[in-house]
Amino acid sequence: MVPFVCFVGPNGVGKTTIIEKLVVNLKQRGYKVGVLKHAAKGFSLDKEGKDSWRYTQIGTDTVILASEEKIVLIKNLKDSIIEEAYRLLNDVDIVLIEGLKTSKFPKIEVHRKGYKLFCAKGVIALVTDEPLEFNIPQFNLEDIKAITDFIEEIFLKKSKKEDIRLLVNGVSIPLNPFLRKFFSQVIKAMVIPLKGVEESKLKNISLDIFYRK
Amino acid sequence: MVPFVCFVGPNGVGKTTIIEKLVVNLKQRGYKVGVLKHAAKGFSLDKEGKDSWRYTQIGTDTVILASEEKIVLIKNLKDSIIEEAYRLLNDVDIVLIEGLKTSKFPKIEVHRKGYKLFCAKGVIALVTDEPLEFNIPQFNLEDIKAITDFIEEIFLKKSKKEDIRLLVNGVSIPLNPFLRKFFSQVIKAMVIPLKGVEESKLKNISLDIFYRK
Repeated sequence: MVPFVCFVGPNGVGKTTIIEKLVVNLKQRGYKVGVLKHAAKGFSLDKEGKDSWRYTQIGTDTVILASEEKIVLIKNLKDSIIEEAYRLLNDVDIVLIEGLKTSKFPKIEVHRKGYKLFCAKGVIALVTDEPLEFNIPQFNLEDIKAITDFIEEIFLKKSKKEDIRLLVNGVSIPLNPFLRKFFSQVIKAMVIPLKGVEESKLKNISLDIFYRK
Repeated sequence: MVPFVCFVGPNGVGKTTIIEKLVVNLKQRGYKVGVLKHAAKGFSLDKEGKDSWRYTQIGTDTVILASEEKIVLIKNLKDSIIEEAYRLLNDVDIVLIEGLKTSKFPKIEVHRKGYKLFCAKGVIALVTDEPLEFNIPQFNLEDIKAITDFIEEIFLKKSKKEDIRLLVNGVSIPLNPFLRKFFSQVIKAMVIPLKGVEESKLKNISLDIFYRK
């Protein structure tokens, strides 16, 4: 399961800047990084009149614009943001979320002198420009290396090993370590004999099965 | 496997308009529709200076912007457009592609008097405002109902049954009917006993397994 970490704090405190710096640092350490940003209702990245806008306006479920270097997907949401994000963000090592302070994900609160503290449930660390009286790890706003080390230690070291994600009807089903191993080994054994599959190069198996009446 | 159909023809012939009308018609018939549009190199939907732009500029692998109603994903491409599109567009019934005339997908050519014909390989039908001397189905530009019927007959009727998609390291592995049935039944049997899964409601199983050294 890809770890999701929220960066919470009031507007203007510098969440985007911190996340940007962490992305640069994590990428330098070889990780694939996703960012999820919660946007205002009715936001629109695509410009009116453009074809992509026309396609979304008429109710196309998913619109993809692709060049040789970049792909942009615009999708009307049917499930929760989180379920959809899990489905779309399965090929990164970590997802840094801007906002979503009411979610169940672990949170890092960004704080600056003069701003109110959120102290949302599930805050595991503080990034602050002044020392605060809390019994959780605190990092200086400028000390990106220390924050990167912390994130790597907590979220990335353990996810380096074999991993598995199972969705049934789009909903994530938790698996204990025995079942994780059972699924990953049995399915590996089913796939290895197939034409075009080389065991030594196997990095990822992705299966999507539809059961229709 | 979700069927992909290309709409080819020279610029200005009306591909976007035809696709728009088909989306509306297919949605009225209850299908989920995706659209893939091939964009010019270096295109950018996101505006300079905006946070999403900042995140993509610094090399974030995937940026997601989400509101309660819409999700936008911006991803730096590592694989081919097609492989990436397969991964992202697995929850629609059909994908209508604007362009990609050199792809291997079946193509419908859109034609208007005075325009040159592409006659790309794999054209299965013509949408035209003048009768042409070709031995494939031809539809009038305005007769959207007939084009929708054709697409439904060719691409959607057969895909209504049980279906399976297998990717290994991101590459699609073809399965014959016996193997499709074998995979879908074995994996169903593995998943049904799990907590949180109800056999009678089972519509889709999605598995993603990573094998790391």
